[in-house]
Amino acid sequence: MFLMVKVDLVVRNAQVFTGGELFSGGIAVKNGTIVAICRNELLPDAETVIDAENNPVLPGVVDPHVHVRDPGHTERGNFETETRAAAHGGVTTFLEHPISCPPPYSPEILEARVKSAEPQCLVDYAFFGAAGADFPQEVGRVAEAGIVAFKTFLHEAPEGREEEFRGLTMANDGAILDGFKAVAKTGLICTVHAENNDIIQRLIQQFRKEGKVGFPYHALSRPPIAEIETVEKLLRFARETGVRISFAHISTPEAMELVKQAKYEGQEVYLETCPHYLFLSDEKLLEIGPFAKGNPPLRSKESMKKLWDYINDGTVDFIGSDHSPFLLSEKEKGLTDIFTAAAGSPCIELTLPLMLTAVRDGRLTLPRAVELLSENAARIFGLFPKKGVLRPGADADFVVVDMKTPFEVSNENLLTHAKAIGVQYNGTKLVGRPLHTAVRGRMVMKDGVVDPEAKGWGQRLYPQK
Amino acid sequence: MFLMVKVDLVVRNAQVFTGGELFSGGIAVKNGTIVAICRNELLPDAETVIDAENNPVLPGVVDPHVHVRDPGHTERGNFETETRAAAHGGVTTFLEHPISCPPPYSPEILEARVKSAEPQCLVDYAFFGAAGADFPQEVGRVAEAGIVAFKTFLHEAPEGREEEFRGLTMANDGAILDGFKAVAKTGLICTVHAENNDIIQRLIQQFRKEGKVGFPYHALSRPPIAEIETVEKLLRFARETGVRISFAHISTPEAMELVKQAKYEGQEVYLETCPHYLFLSDEKLLEIGPFAKGNPPLRSKESMKKLWDYINDGTVDFIGSDHSPFLLSEKEKGLTDIFTAAAGSPCIELTLPLMLTAVRDGRLTLPRAVELLSENAARIFGLFPKKGVLRPGADADFVVVDMKTPFEVSNENLLTHAKAIGVQYNGTKLVGRPLHTAVRGRMVMKDGVVDPEAKGWGQRLYPQK
Amino acid sequence: MFLMVKVDLVVRNAQVFTGGELFSGGIAVKNGTIVAICRNELLPDAETVIDAENNPVLPGVVDPHVHVRDPGHTERGNFETETRAAAHGGVTTFLEHPISCPPPYSPEILEARVKSAEPQCLVDYAFFGAAGADFPQEVGRVAEAGIVAFKTFLHEAPEGREEEFRGLTMANDGAILDGFKAVAKTGLICTVHAENNDIIQRLIQQFRKEGKVGFPYHALSRPPIAEIETVEKLLRFARETGVRISFAHISTPEAMELVKQAKYEGQEVYLETCPHYLFLSDEKLLEIGPFAKGNPPLRSKESMKKLWDYINDGTVDFIGSDHSPFLLSEKEKGLTDIFTAAAGSPCIELTLPLMLTAVRDGRLTLPRAVELLSENAARIFGLFPKKGVLRPGADADFVVVDMKTPFEVSNENLLTHAKAIGVQYNGTKLVGRPLHTAVRGRMVMKDGVVDPEAKGWGQRLYPQK
Amino acid sequence: MFLMVKVDLVVRNAQVFTGGELFSGGIAVKNGTIVAICRNELLPDAETVIDAENNPVLPGVVDPHVHVRDPGHTERGNFETETRAAAHGGVTTFLEHPISCPPPYSPEILEARVKSAEPQCLVDYAFFGAAGADFPQEVGRVAEAGIVAFKTFLHEAPEGREEEFRGLTMANDGAILDGFKAVAKTGLICTVHAENNDIIQRLIQQFRKEGKVGFPYHALSRPPIAEIETVEKLLRFARETGVRISFAHISTPEAMELVKQAKYEGQEVYLETCPHYLFLSDEKLLEIGPFAKGNPPLRSKESMKKLWDYINDGTVDFIGSDHSPFLLSEKEKGLTDIFTAAAGSPCIELTLPLMLTAVRDGRLTLPRAVELLSENAARIFGLFPKKGVLRPGADADFVVVDMKTPFEVSNENLLTHAKAIGVQYNGTKLVGRPLHTAVRGRMVMKDGVVDPEAKGWGQRLYPQK
Ligand SMILES: [Zn+2]
Ligand SMILES: [Zn+2]
Ligand SMILES: [Zn+2]
Ligand SMILES: [Zn+2]
Ligand SMILES: [Zn+2]
Ligand SMILES: [Zn+2]
Ligand SMILES: [Zn+2]
Ligand SMILES: [Zn+2]
Repeated sequence: MFLMVKVDLVVRNAQVFTGGELFSGGIAVKNGTIVAICRNELLPDAETVIDAENNPVLPGVVDPHVHVRDPGHTERGNFETETRAAAHGGVTTFLEHPISCPPPYSPEILEARVKSAEPQCLVDYAFFGAAGADFPQEVGRVAEAGIVAFKTFLHEAPEGREEEFRGLTMANDGAILDGFKAVAKTGLICTVHAENNDIIQRLIQQFRKEGKVGFPYHALSRPPIAEIETVEKLLRFARETGVRISFAHISTPEAMELVKQAKYEGQEVYLETCPHYLFLSDEKLLEIGPFAKGNPPLRSKESMKKLWDYINDGTVDFIGSDHSPFLLSEKEKGLTDIFTAAAGSPCIELTLPLMLTAVRDGRLTLPRAVELLSENAARIFGLFPKKGVLRPGADADFVVVDMKTPFEVSNENLLTHAKAIGVQYNGTKLVGRPLHTAVRGRMVMKDGVVDPEAKGWGQRLYPQK
Repeated sequence: MFLMVKVDLVVRNAQVFTGGELFSGGIAVKNGTIVAICRNELLPDAETVIDAENNPVLPGVVDPHVHVRDPGHTERGNFETETRAAAHGGVTTFLEHPISCPPPYSPEILEARVKSAEPQCLVDYAFFGAAGADFPQEVGRVAEAGIVAFKTFLHEAPEGREEEFRGLTMANDGAILDGFKAVAKTGLICTVHAENNDIIQRLIQQFRKEGKVGFPYHALSRPPIAEIETVEKLLRFARETGVRISFAHISTPEAMELVKQAKYEGQEVYLETCPHYLFLSDEKLLEIGPFAKGNPPLRSKESMKKLWDYINDGTVDFIGSDHSPFLLSEKEKGLTDIFTAAAGSPCIELTLPLMLTAVRDGRLTLPRAVELLSENAARIFGLFPKKGVLRPGADADFVVVDMKTPFEVSNENLLTHAKAIGVQYNGTKLVGRPLHTAVRGRMVMKDGVVDPEAKGWGQRLYPQK
Repeated sequence: MFLMVKVDLVVRNAQVFTGGELFSGGIAVKNGTIVAICRNELLPDAETVIDAENNPVLPGVVDPHVHVRDPGHTERGNFETETRAAAHGGVTTFLEHPISCPPPYSPEILEARVKSAEPQCLVDYAFFGAAGADFPQEVGRVAEAGIVAFKTFLHEAPEGREEEFRGLTMANDGAILDGFKAVAKTGLICTVHAENNDIIQRLIQQFRKEGKVGFPYHALSRPPIAEIETVEKLLRFARETGVRISFAHISTPEAMELVKQAKYEGQEVYLETCPHYLFLSDEKLLEIGPFAKGNPPLRSKESMKKLWDYINDGTVDFIGSDHSPFLLSEKEKGLTDIFTAAAGSPCIELTLPLMLTAVRDGRLTLPRAVELLSENAARIFGLFPKKGVLRPGADADFVVVDMKTPFEVSNENLLTHAKAIGVQYNGTKLVGRPLHTAVRGRMVMKDGVVDPEAKGWGQRLYPQK
Repeated sequence: MFLMVKVDLVVRNAQVFTGGELFSGGIAVKNGTIVAICRNELLPDAETVIDAENNPVLPGVVDPHVHVRDPGHTERGNFETETRAAAHGGVTTFLEHPISCPPPYSPEILEARVKSAEPQCLVDYAFFGAAGADFPQEVGRVAEAGIVAFKTFLHEAPEGREEEFRGLTMANDGAILDGFKAVAKTGLICTVHAENNDIIQRLIQQFRKEGKVGFPYHALSRPPIAEIETVEKLLRFARETGVRISFAHISTPEAMELVKQAKYEGQEVYLETCPHYLFLSDEKLLEIGPFAKGNPPLRSKESMKKLWDYINDGTVDFIGSDHSPFLLSEKEKGLTDIFTAAAGSPCIELTLPLMLTAVRDGRLTLPRAVELLSENAARIFGLFPKKGVLRPGADADFVVVDMKTPFEVSNENLLTHAKAIGVQYNGTKLVGRPLHTAVRGRMVMKDGVVDPEAKGWGQRLYPQK
């Protein structure tokens, strides 16, 4: 009777990561959903057959922290170029943060972003909403418009970027409490960029006055205390208001310890860190200056190493890339004055190989890596069990990776529109290169080549309660 | 091409718990292993086909705490009778604790137990070794003989049970430190029955002297402090000696809080509780006396309720039944003097329905229940990923449960040899009755009827590092 | 041979508080110093003899928190009027906080304040210096000019009070870190008014917008979190910079708990509270509005009661009056708009009777009261062992109090220039009225009557290392 | 009028420690009580005049931990010989612990001890009662007979010392809980010797079996965990039973940390350490073996240094000498088998110089030393304000010390009957030698010479509530 059955896609000869382990067999997909995980000999006939050549097949990466900024600064990259990069990096779902022009603080603005994304994206996506203190009446409305979470910044818009930060900032402690209360009512998570802007701006002003604008001053102007104090404060404000809080891109072990303690005491709090805080130290900043500039800055080697304890003990919930394309010119300005350089790097393509190389090196286990890269973000932002896991019934979002062949990173090989500036890891030898990427059963990358026809295949995702 | 494939067993029309969720489809099994989890229409032909009638299929229960006591007191039950009960309760793997005559403190004694179990067991099993201070030289030997962990008691053998406790006790604090050091060297977990025997014996003596031998005095003679203090001490001794420690049948929220804190501080420690501490309070002791007597005793309702916080926050690692068959006469003695009654109940058949009823009532989620009942014990005792999870590649150990039809518990319906005393839950209305149980692809129970032919099908398991 | 000895002053028939207890006897004073504490029959001849009539003689109160504001707003009171009030209240030393026009952020400005105080004061005094972020270069200079500590505020000057707050504020977190670093170098304590101004200003704006300007809105605009968060932040900043920190007028048990914990962990931190937080709740604010307005505001009865735990367990270091004279018109404005009223009350005369009434009521012991009122502030601000204690060799600063005769408080009986607004405790029945007050052996009040001739007797004090 | 006054004793030209500071002047005493502290020129005429030659006069030491063992082993020393030593060491009050034959567990036995002490003692004294689990009915009776506190041991009597330990032990955890409950009812403090006897006895047995009976094995048989675990347990048992607990002779920083934390959390708990734990490390044990043997044993140098943090942060409440005279033969046995040597040293004469030398060396302040040596024990055991402080109204118990002239310790100069074994500090250079000691105004030592006529001058003290 089942002779009749033919499916859309089959991956065979794979090491499928399912149920917490690698399984030798394959996956069958129909209508975008995994319909079978089974031994090769049980795989049905299929329109398309991929031979995994005994490589691991992992859940596609769910990247919870991406800045495409389209519409707005499309000269830096747009949904098409950056989701090509995503597919290239094994990312099958990304969460777009709300820095755009203007930020999506209302359903109408959000709709405009969706309109822009829809025809362009190669992979699936969901949106963060902007939560600020300026338009409290919009918070509930935008929550209902289908965002996965809110994001907010704790300072006034940087000079000249007013449009980009409108409705996105809780610029002082009073505003934060009000903003948190508003978000708490929606039941959604509030993600924060946790740096103390007063401390930073004062130091920058002072360094500027003293002519200290060289590479090291970026890190010196954003000392650990600026992150630590803010995390401590926001944990308290979150308890006070009942908001579910998530910390973006935490860079210091001290802040992680505070989050660990809050979790222990029963607070609902989430913690993201980024690959650059795990693999790069402030020595890289001294070396390449603006190209290693991000906020928060890279930290000392000693501090960096301590983060791995929190990776392994469960304190860190997920890894975000904080993918941030910029023009080369926006970075080069920093060569003479580090403070003028754009902050951020277009790194979405390397998260997966970096973390898998760490797996190879025994710094974490593969199951833990999959939790950090896919499952946890999907769970926390309401996309699980369709996303973040390989199991029958889930979306067929996966990536086949090569754990054996080392490759040397070069920004020349990146697909992001901003590849010119993506030089942070140049020369590093990694394993874990994505070979094939599928989104809901469609191959968006095969044999390392992204399919341009996949443009528009990506779908917008809505969180489940 | 795959037309040729025919498997041994197929379960269809199921809600398969896999990848953290229920999936509508089925399971195919060959040579004892799951070879496919897939939509019904993709299931291969099979020798045996089970129609799950849209009921959930869960990983078989891994019960980490069972006392068959064979060889030794087979009048109370033997490996055959008690593993029939196991199969009846959806338990596909159990860990036999080392109370036997004599306890397995040496490879030779262990071998004798294995020999006894082999021809009898219907389900898979592994052994705890006995760790005591009397035969330190045997600790390393028995570890290498293939046990999953050690168990120890903290007091001299009870009068008249010297044989049963030989080599199983660390009878004072000096002995504990020595015993822990010996176990630490093996790398295996040391499981402890954590009650302060001095406190208890003194109270019993005193109550006896005062003629206080009625039902309530069982609980009063084993106050919470007897457990709390011992847990605090053993956590410290475990840190001092580097042993990996696991606490059996914890009954008080205060002890759980101590374990929670130790975990937070990075100590490797595991925590078991039992259904009776979650569902029965000391009111049951007042009602049925010896038949509700176990060690530790049932606690107050208020205390009982607090345990659920630790069920849900991750502090409790697994649920053990502490299944303990006794003769009716051994219990009835307690009707006139509670201190003379045997302690323990034959409850392996009800763990799963009790916990699934709690799922229905919203006290925990199904994924959390599966962790507590199957996955965590398998992981911690080295049986994962063959046991504890439904995924292609795992052993086909599963149980089909009926979540819809309520049933009333009666000890008459139990299969344990000690059914006469298994009256604790009589009259309780539960859901989650096991319909079919499979062990490595063989149906050991079908439609609620255990297959006597399955005797001897159970295999001994060895832990993986 | 000792027949020749005649001293300046003798108090006889006293219960002298010395060595932690009351002693029946008397005190002999020469040249301002206590030369003997002895039984009556051993007291030498003296120019002046005071009969204490068996009343307690306590160390004069050392009030660490006073605002005379002279020079500046002398229409509210000046050093003469307010130190009359001090003498009347048994206060023999007060520490003047740096709100003046301008604040003493430089030695020159400080000198001007000293010049104003010198001819006027009836009791001894020392000055706080102003520490702000505006004149970092002055911090070291003013420290050397003989201040006991620094005081700072964490916000910009209130509108229209720019002059009063110049050089006195660390208006944002960056400024605080810089300011703390500067103070840390001096080795002096930095005292802070710990309220989160952003939270408060936002709430006030909002209430104003909504026309909510009635009495309750003063407390509602300054919620506990505004104090708690600031204390938590400043404790961290103090650890970061190494500054010795002291918290003025703490009003919430949560903030006290944070300080308790910091002390436990070894941080050098001091904690002041004021009588109004111990004896008045927000019900008083509802009753008399502006006349009960102070910053921080009065709290709930429940919260108020909890403060007494920290009084008794050693967390609170000293009691300050926060004596703040204002014009009646400055308070009356608040009758129609609470936000426009001046914040603070002229309460220096009642601290001692209030606390002694609490002693009578068993809320604290007399030795603890003396620590809180006299000894601790003297020790912490470098005035001990001349001040804060009755012992041979110390300054003869004392107050004879009547613990037996109850009296009813009426603002009519106050000596402060601002008596018109000092109505908070009107109608309360107290004991502990000061009968006689001596400063360095001179009676500045006798039989409840302040000696106007004592004007100018007060001396400026310098802290000892 | 005051010409007539003549007192019994005057100390002139002194630095009197009073009110937390040294005061240049003198003390006048009448009927055993201080009637004046005043400048020299105000001192009255007196029967006896002592010229302190500008040396400090401190409150006499209150030694809370002394073992005279009279009646019982008077061959080791008796109340006369050992209180001569006390006077020689500046000790004016001592608390006799209840190891005698039999221990004072009943009023009748206590009375016998009092009878023995009365005609012999040169200094004042109070008694600990014995609290054991054997005679619970006596606990309340002996409490009312005027003891200052209870003492208990946590193990069976050592072999051959049954008589000495009768009624003095709570030999297992059940007995401790019962014993604590009994003491809790009396409201008195329960002092414990906190070592885990099971751990120790097991190690001793094992070392013996292996022939390891050399000097180091004393410390190795009583490892830090034996103290730490016991302190943790007893803190919990004290909370459980509500008893006020005091830990004798704590020797490890870990145990002190546990007590510090319990205090922070509000538990009433007291902590004693002894000079040998502060000044001697286990190197001394290696050097002189049995003569440095005590229980608990000397610890590592590193551990010893950490104790000073707890001396200074307030965790340690008082210093006890644990003065323990033995026969030379009882020590010499240990030269060939350390386990056979008596444990303890006769060190009451050196506590004060040792601590004052530490004051000179800046390891603690003089006021802190006086708290630890005199004031705190007096307060905690109900003897304050008559004892422990120099103030008018207090007993004239004082010691004049020479802080300037260094002296070298030699056991030849000791007065204890057990001087032959008091060699621990031989060769050490100290300051702080007691010159004159007075008890209730009578000089019991003058110019370093104890007055044999003072025999019987000592009075028994009763605690005040
Ligand atoms: Zn950011
Ligand atoms: Zn970002
Ligand atoms: Zn057990
Ligand atoms: Zn058991
Ligand atoms: Zn203030
Ligand atoms: Zn103030
Ligand atoms: Zn002892
Ligand atoms: Zn002792």
